[in-house]
Amino acid sequence: MNKQTKIAVLGGGSWATAIVKMLSENLETIGWYMRSAYAIEHIKRNKHNPSYLSSAEFNTEQLDLSDDMNYIAENYDVLIFAIPSAFLKTALDKLSVSLQDKIVFSAIKGIVPETGLIVGEHFHKNFNIPYQNIGVLTGPCHAEEVAMERLSYLTIACQDRKKAEHLSQFIASRYIKIKISDDIIGTEYAAMLKNIYAIAAGIAHGLGYGDNFQAVLMSNGIREMKRFIEKVDQMNRNINDSAYLGDLLVTGYSVFSRNRMFGNMIGKGYTVKSAQMEMSMVAEGYYATKSAYEINQKIDANAPIIKAVYNVLYGKKEAKDEFLKLTNRLD
Amino acid sequence: MNKQTKIAVLGGGSWATAIVKMLSENLETIGWYMRSAYAIEHIKRNKHNPSYLSSAEFNTEQLDLSDDMNYIAENYDVLIFAIPSAFLKTALDKLSVSLQDKIVFSAIKGIVPETGLIVGEHFHKNFNIPYQNIGVLTGPCHAEEVAMERLSYLTIACQDRKKAEHLSQFIASRYIKIKISDDIIGTEYAAMLKNIYAIAAGIAHGLGYGDNFQAVLMSNGIREMKRFIEKVDQMNRNINDSAYLGDLLVTGYSVFSRNRMFGNMIGKGYTVKSAQMEMSMVAEGYYATKSAYEINQKIDANAPIIKAVYNVLYGKKEAKDEFLKLTNRLD
Repeated sequence: MNKQTKIAVLGGGSWATAIVKMLSENLETIGWYMRSAYAIEHIKRNKHNPSYLSSAEFNTEQLDLSDDMNYIAENYDVLIFAIPSAFLKTALDKLSVSLQDKIVFSAIKGIVPETGLIVGEHFHKNFNIPYQNIGVLTGPCHAEEVAMERLSYLTIACQDRKKAEHLSQFIASRYIKIKISDDIIGTEYAAMLKNIYAIAAGIAHGLGYGDNFQAVLMSNGIREMKRFIEKVDQMNRNINDSAYLGDLLVTGYSVFSRNRMFGNMIGKGYTVKSAQMEMSMVAEGYYATKSAYEINQKIDANAPIIKAVYNVLYGKKEAKDEFLKLTNRLD
Repeated sequence: MNKQTKIAVLGGGSWATAIVKMLSENLETIGWYMRSAYAIEHIKRNKHNPSYLSSAEFNTEQLDLSDDMNYIAENYDVLIFAIPSAFLKTALDKLSVSLQDKIVFSAIKGIVPETGLIVGEHFHKNFNIPYQNIGVLTGPCHAEEVAMERLSYLTIACQDRKKAEHLSQFIASRYIKIKISDDIIGTEYAAMLKNIYAIAAGIAHGLGYGDNFQAVLMSNGIREMKRFIEKVDQMNRNINDSAYLGDLLVTGYSVFSRNRMFGNMIGKGYTVKSAQMEMSMVAEGYYATKSAYEINQKIDANAPIIKAVYNVLYGKKEAKDEFLKLTNRLD
């Protein structure tokens, strides 16, 4: 273990909390930025995050907590961002420290709505970080199971594989295995697209479709994901690797997935607005659907599932009619 | 609809019953062989199968029921076999009518234990039926959802695609969509192998592995299935089609799957024998594991999941140790 490596996590949600827990198995000190000063005080006093993944206990002596993003960016070399994509731009606006010499990993599953870019592209274009210093940390992984120390496999991707391997030493543990990849574009798109397919699975379930249809939907979903990602960035990848298919399955089959739950409410007849109010949060797949639809206007992949979800969420189409049409496009 | 086409189903279980139900949407008369004279009497009186899928109601005027396999084979041109592979040879031993001019479809997910052949090969080699007249009817499909008339997608495969298309007219309905394929070998192996992966999923669950691991197991399972089938029969197929990946998912994620349930008991510490006694039946994947392991001794595909399940079921290895080793072979 390289004690010189200074790694920080930025974000206060459950996935951020899970990553801090993984790092705490290996590092003496972990930088941890979160917006809420209240949450920081709570962690210092009670050794767990008050709002997310509260079953994960921390040794607070390992944590360098701060609600000042500039302090963290100044003092740490490797920055792992786990802030929901919808809030990323606002959060980064506070930043005055340059990121140019930092290694930035995205643990964010989504697209930055203001720029329509996946997170890696956003950092590259807006913060002048070379792609060699940008990476992705992805599942299949429910944060809750990390808290329970259940065996999970993560993928760390970076065009410079050495940087991915370096980070992997500090994430891997008794219950975390790591696969290294150089596909930063494909893994990020997969992490984003799978939320759309999880919404589709939820809508189908809400409409009364069963397990037979769910299996067909996932089988079509992974083929659609492959066509979409190939159009965005052609390279040699196996779409059935855990970072793509595994990530789709862990979300699409999860009854805890916020995206699936959101879709389920839509399928049961809630309007988009009332489903969002009922959940008191916005599922990431909601934004991803719009972004993916717009990207697909340019790349023109054959993507009937994305189109159907878009038409329901943004096109005021009835879920029932739209999915009936969709069933004729699947096989 | 071609009223001349005489189609019969052979078998009395839930999948056989579901196929009869699908055909009853389109055909005036369906031949139906089942071993149990008691079940036949019950169906005639009460319009449903007493033991399997009893929620499916039949118009008995459409059913030509018989417990005489020779009568059915004599009088019908297309024979759809849905007898569990473990009992197929014994059942066929009663047959004196030649099958040489029949079109035979297998709706059986497994290998004939006595010959180590998949069902299509068994009919070809032992009944002199040319491959052009042999087909496969496969899922992803829980029979229970057919009874509920929930939308399901089946694949009908035959080297002579016209015969598959012909049968598809009589199976397709409001709630059944059909995909045609010419991959009779690959679809049968997939239907057989998926039961092994369902046992593996059950064992993992029984041992306390969670959803993150399940997603990784399925992702590795479909890659292993691809390697295995390619070694047996190389042809151009998309392993992510519904007949392969969809079928794996509908079984591997089903809490009702007998194979998954069997694995779960093994994972929880039952011996193979006590798990089988507790379930009062033998999960098809139990036989499939031995057959697939033996085939793999010859074809030598990289198949760590099949090997692990074999070592647990037949090699007296502790599930806990064997799966711990397996986790290091997955990614």
